[in-house]
Amino acid sequence: MIGKRFDNNLDTMFGLTILGNNSALPAYNRHPTAQVLTLNDQLFLIDCGEGTQMQMSLYKIRRGRINHIFISHLHGDHYFGLPGLITSFGLLGRASDLHLYAPSALEPILDLQLNCADTRLPYKLHFHALEKSLVLIDEDSFSVECFRVFHRIDCWGFLFREKRNPRKINVEATEKYDVPVSYYNRLKQGDDYVNDDKITANGALTFPNKPSRSYAYCADTLYNESLVEIIKNVSTLYHEATYLKDKQEKATARFHSTTIQAAQLAKLANVKQLLIGHFSSTYEKVEEFLVEAQEVFPDTKLALEGQTYLIQ
Amino acid sequence: MIGKRFDNNLDTMFGLTILGNNSALPAYNRHPTAQVLTLNDQLFLIDCGEGTQMQMSLYKIRRGRINHIFISHLHGDHYFGLPGLITSFGLLGRASDLHLYAPSALEPILDLQLNCADTRLPYKLHFHALEKSLVLIDEDSFSVECFRVFHRIDCWGFLFREKRNPRKINVEATEKYDVPVSYYNRLKQGDDYVNDDKITANGALTFPNKPSRSYAYCADTLYNESLVEIIKNVSTLYHEATYLKDKQEKATARFHSTTIQAAQLAKLANVKQLLIGHFSSTYEKVEEFLVEAQEVFPDTKLALEGQTYLIQ
Repeated sequence: MIGKRFDNNLDTMFGLTILGNNSALPAYNRHPTAQVLTLNDQLFLIDCGEGTQMQMSLYKIRRGRINHIFISHLHGDHYFGLPGLITSFGLLGRASDLHLYAPSALEPILDLQLNCADTRLPYKLHFHALEKSLVLIDEDSFSVECFRVFHRIDCWGFLFREKRNPRKINVEATEKYDVPVSYYNRLKQGDDYVNDDKITANGALTFPNKPSRSYAYCADTLYNESLVEIIKNVSTLYHEATYLKDKQEKATARFHSTTIQAAQLAKLANVKQLLIGHFSSTYEKVEEFLVEAQEVFPDTKLALEGQTYLIQ
Repeated sequence: MIGKRFDNNLDTMFGLTILGNNSALPAYNRHPTAQVLTLNDQLFLIDCGEGTQMQMSLYKIRRGRINHIFISHLHGDHYFGLPGLITSFGLLGRASDLHLYAPSALEPILDLQLNCADTRLPYKLHFHALEKSLVLIDEDSFSVECFRVFHRIDCWGFLFREKRNPRKINVEATEKYDVPVSYYNRLKQGDDYVNDDKITANGALTFPNKPSRSYAYCADTLYNESLVEIIKNVSTLYHEATYLKDKQEKATARFHSTTIQAAQLAKLANVKQLLIGHFSSTYEKVEEFLVEAQEVFPDTKLALEGQTYLIQ
């Protein structure tokens, strides 16, 4: 019973697995962009470059748990793996609905591809066109918003927010006051414990919980400080860093960012942790990206393929 | 000089490199269909499943030498790697024309993909719609034909024929009769040597050459003996063998073939060598495919990724 009660307070798993960290041209065994965000037993796929389904096999991603796919924009290195994944879901006999959030121009492409292959998916594919900043998903335990970023073509960022109960159970106190386990969820929401005519204040039975965790994804984009307001205080920010700092002019010309720019935005937004990726294929090694970004924002990590980063 | 003269008789390289040998669902680190045919200094890409450009890097294919791409049909495992390859050619600064031979429904898909990415290719992409059996390319040194195979959707096979000179130089004889090297090409075509009023018969100066080599590609298809007439006597036949012989009913229901059927067609067509591939992802190991096919046609090989098979 104690074990069960403690489980009620356990953090759910919140982590990000990188499947691809390279920019447009695959190089040095780095793959185009794809990330899997795990929140408890749900997986969210963010972008889906060519080869994503093979990377999922390599890194043992349980693809059946993906119910939501988010495509930032329609440059091929962010979605050319999607038709294959959608088709493979069908071949694997998927039955549950799949929700796809992407710029509207993707829908007729997928329709043509499915039609000319005479493919009838055994599951329902819901296409949600990204047209303005809004909350895409609002569930009990999490929400997902989209927001505009600044690329050569229509491009979107995504913000995932865990919804945490405001209070955590104080097990010693609930045992002392003999509060039944069935009451725990109300306590976690902040309710007092009412038993007949006796009221025990919530504060005596719970502790304040930690703030909710969040993940913001910004790729591909120019450096733009208007993003700060949107991503302020997130637990983990992924921001593209296609080039090292000496290539800022090139980065700007191509609507991309440098190491320093990604780190500067993380600093202004007061995030806890920064992940950088989308490395240009002109670089064989990427260690220098970390050195440069950490000069501005020490809590930076490189987004490396096959690695999982805890969001905390 | 002797060396140079002998070079004139040397066989050109004619070989097939397998980049993917699996059917629809990538499995056991086997990739969807893609093959590169090398004829002298030209490369021909046959089908282009997802991940083909990464496989090209892995197996060090000189992709800049590819000027012709052939897509058999529009199931994703035969073309989902094509948009990425076409885009990467652009990023790599390709300037030379690229010829694409494929079912007509592919063209609007590629157009949409290029348009929504605002991609302007720095090279010219020529789309040739496959609509009837015909000679697609007829050059001095080779020809390529397409022919219908028998799949659930419109599907094409391809037949590559080397054009060999009918005669080979007899170096001892040409030296004895003092024939200039500039005359060799005419001798190889069968001309007599005419010097002022003196005629030396071609037969005295040359040997008969070996017959021209050829490669036929049949995927994906039902077993159908009407193909025999088309692929008769080819040097190497690739025929799909998606299933082992005990799954013939399943193979037929899905418009595919078994090991035995591929081998039987090779035998009826009197080909020199059979390659089988497009293995179903239900099989972890593929050795049994070879055992079964060789029962009917001993000169069978498995199409294995990264392997190059000489066509002779």
